[in-house]
Amino acid sequence: MAHETVHARIGLVGLGVMGANLALNIAENGFPIAVYNRTGSVTDDFMASAGDLAPALLPAKTPQDLVASLQSPRAIIIMVQAGGPVDAVIETLRPHLEEGDMIIDAGNANFHDTRRREAALRETGIRFFGMGVSGGEEGARHGPSIMVGGDPAAFEAIRDIIEAISAKFKGTPCATHFGPDGAGHFVKTVHNGIEYADMQMIAEVYGLLRDGQDRDAPGIGALFESWDKGPLSSYLVEITGKVLQATDPETGRPMVEMIVDSAGQKGTGRWTAIEAITLGQSPSTIEAAVAARAWSAAKPARIDGAALFASTDAPAFTLSDDTLEQALLAAKIIAYDQGFSLLAAASEAFDWDMDLADCAEVWRAGCIIRSTMLDEMAAAIREGLPHGQLIFAPRFAARLETATTALRRVVAEAALTGLPVPAFSAALAYFDTMRQARGTADVIQAQRDFFGAHGFARTDGGVGHHGPWGA
Amino acid sequence: MAHETVHARIGLVGLGVMGANLALNIAENGFPIAVYNRTGSVTDDFMASAGDLAPALLPAKTPQDLVASLQSPRAIIIMVQAGGPVDAVIETLRPHLEEGDMIIDAGNANFHDTRRREAALRETGIRFFGMGVSGGEEGARHGPSIMVGGDPAAFEAIRDIIEAISAKFKGTPCATHFGPDGAGHFVKTVHNGIEYADMQMIAEVYGLLRDGQDRDAPGIGALFESWDKGPLSSYLVEITGKVLQATDPETGRPMVEMIVDSAGQKGTGRWTAIEAITLGQSPSTIEAAVAARAWSAAKPARIDGAALFASTDAPAFTLSDDTLEQALLAAKIIAYDQGFSLLAAASEAFDWDMDLADCAEVWRAGCIIRSTMLDEMAAAIREGLPHGQLIFAPRFAARLETATTALRRVVAEAALTGLPVPAFSAALAYFDTMRQARGTADVIQAQRDFFGAHGFARTDGGVGHHGPWGA
Repeated sequence: MAHETVHARIGLVGLGVMGANLALNIAENGFPIAVYNRTGSVTDDFMASAGDLAPALLPAKTPQDLVASLQSPRAIIIMVQAGGPVDAVIETLRPHLEEGDMIIDAGNANFHDTRRREAALRETGIRFFGMGVSGGEEGARHGPSIMVGGDPAAFEAIRDIIEAISAKFKGTPCATHFGPDGAGHFVKTVHNGIEYADMQMIAEVYGLLRDGQDRDAPGIGALFESWDKGPLSSYLVEITGKVLQATDPETGRPMVEMIVDSAGQKGTGRWTAIEAITLGQSPSTIEAAVAARAWSAAKPARIDGAALFASTDAPAFTLSDDTLEQALLAAKIIAYDQGFSLLAAASEAFDWDMDLADCAEVWRAGCIIRSTMLDEMAAAIREGLPHGQLIFAPRFAARLETATTALRRVVAEAALTGLPVPAFSAALAYFDTMRQARGTADVIQAQRDFFGAHGFARTDGGVGHHGPWGA
Repeated sequence: MAHETVHARIGLVGLGVMGANLALNIAENGFPIAVYNRTGSVTDDFMASAGDLAPALLPAKTPQDLVASLQSPRAIIIMVQAGGPVDAVIETLRPHLEEGDMIIDAGNANFHDTRRREAALRETGIRFFGMGVSGGEEGARHGPSIMVGGDPAAFEAIRDIIEAISAKFKGTPCATHFGPDGAGHFVKTVHNGIEYADMQMIAEVYGLLRDGQDRDAPGIGALFESWDKGPLSSYLVEITGKVLQATDPETGRPMVEMIVDSAGQKGTGRWTAIEAITLGQSPSTIEAAVAARAWSAAKPARIDGAALFASTDAPAFTLSDDTLEQALLAAKIIAYDQGFSLLAAASEAFDWDMDLADCAEVWRAGCIIRSTMLDEMAAAIREGLPHGQLIFAPRFAARLETATTALRRVVAEAALTGLPVPAFSAALAYFDTMRQARGTADVIQAQRDFFGAHGFARTDGGVGHHGPWGA
């Protein structure tokens, strides 16, 4: 096939790891794809390693070339670093595009940027999509979970390609259009926020067993492996089993013991927390996970802190593995409740009219937080969530009644033992708040009225009342 | 004194409750002040009620009048609603001002807005100050805590007025210039964030006693009143004692029982949390307090949640009042540690070169979070904080060793009893993280490398390593 004669339906800019794998995935699914990378040698290397798929890949030397090799309406995926680079690529493409052409940002954009870009390009007749892609390298290559936002009618022109390359859950594509402009990138952001919470809660269990019961990494890994066969079955539990049982080839010790305990973050967890607070939401499990990563950076301080406060150490952690499994289950359901509540709040604030069950379903395969439980969550959402709360859904409430007893015991014993469980305790605090008919904000309202004359609502009716504080 | 002949050194725009009280405070301290309000009748009413102070108040009918009645360089305080109204007032004043004149925004501005306004006005030769004022009506009238940001040299022209009207701690004015542009408003924001945490922790104690020990509000109020004589002595503990002992004149019942348990918030707590996360900080106690207020709004959901999960209720809360006092002390110190860490991070990010001890000192009197402990915190900061951590300061570490044992017991028993303690548990999670020499972020780094090839640092050196996950 000569480049000049083939017109592909889709193109891709940015042949980094994710972009390259996504291009191969598209080609393998029978869609010839034009590819372009600013540094030409990257394109050459990519083509050289493409093997059997090379004939379906049309390398372009310039953005103009790329555009020229596409059928109209053109669809171009951008997979470059979030932020300025996306705007730069848009600028290089725009002069060559026509009304009705599509640009699809498949990077981890902040959804506010996606909203801005969509609005700006709409003025010029170009359709802009924000497309969240989860699943890492492996997912990009063989089937990621794909969360799309943008013009719904225009999306129909590329839906077959996007569904074809996506992960499948029992045959159903994990590729969904969630609403206009930033909806898809927002779903991806919340996905990552939940991912943070999931990972942190797993890490807390690991810490309780390691430090509270002196268990070794492979043993804890075997426990996670066994949990992956039960209700906690999920990609993150599965890989936790694997990483904890891995051996460092250099030292022969468990790999995890050779890893510095300071976590990195690329910002999507923080974005989730910031957007949540901006929307008046407080997904405490996600905030706790973001916090734990931030605090982990203070390694030298923690070492001195351990020496300084050594004497506050208490007895060992005695709870059973089954109790921990139940506690993790409870905390996980609560974290997802908070994630779905955040999605609902954003959908309302930005007029996305988003289907929350679609979110649960798009995450069932391909993405990092995929789990069997998401299928049941989707079903629960379709059945209707009382007050919009997943924790109140009959099929989860019943489970939580038992599982939160375990969570209580874990939080209590961790507190007494001196082991930190920020996400577990944040989950429990939320759960117990949501089952407290009369909370304690009455005293906060009284204080606010006392010092700031903010007024309060009375239980027997009326707002803007003031207390008899002067008396 | 005829208006035309007196030139005041300072003027004020916005005669709402806070502005009116601040103007009276300034006049009473011997500084004639020109005042203006957009609605003229408000000015008339203000003058009519000014009594003996009226001769020192120069009412202006227009912004131009106001400016004309001021000596050069002019200094005009704006006390209007944060946001657009501040910009609007600036626009009405600007055409009448000259190079070297000063505008001082004394409202609760977001410090980003203050930075923007300062930069824009600097171009025109006008000095803009962001001035946080805390202490409510009473403070504004008789001595608030004042946190100033803006050009330090220009501030000297008004320092005597600002110091004169401020609260005094043992004779020292609680009025401080913290750095350029938004520094003062940021200190005020963090003040409010800490205020949220303080109030939430007090509310948690109230809840444990009310729901866990069936104690009545006046009895709990008497306990807070007694605590106000000990190490917890502070304005918020004092007024908690008062509001809990107040009786509703309409029903004869404790006032607090007649107040709806949904807390309001004007946004400064959220700002603190958002700025913190943006700066890579996670003040978990403040986040928990913001969360508790947000969750308190879900009253109908909480009522149904209580019915749904009633059976998970557990035995009563048995800990002593002394244990609760110690727990509150520990949680409070931890919250302030997080607040000071946030201030340090912002000072570094925005090049404010802020003195943290000054922050502790400016809060010692006049403001909502004033307490005897702040004097000791200032001393600890001046002595030097190991790793910048207040909790590591010798005079606080010793106290925390005992007090955190109480905090542990409270968090543990609250968890088992089913009573929510979001801020207490967030404080403990932070404390235990900061005394964990080896944390659990190793497993998070392993997971991230497994699914995203993010790489990790090895304990025996080097970064960017990958695990043998494929094996």
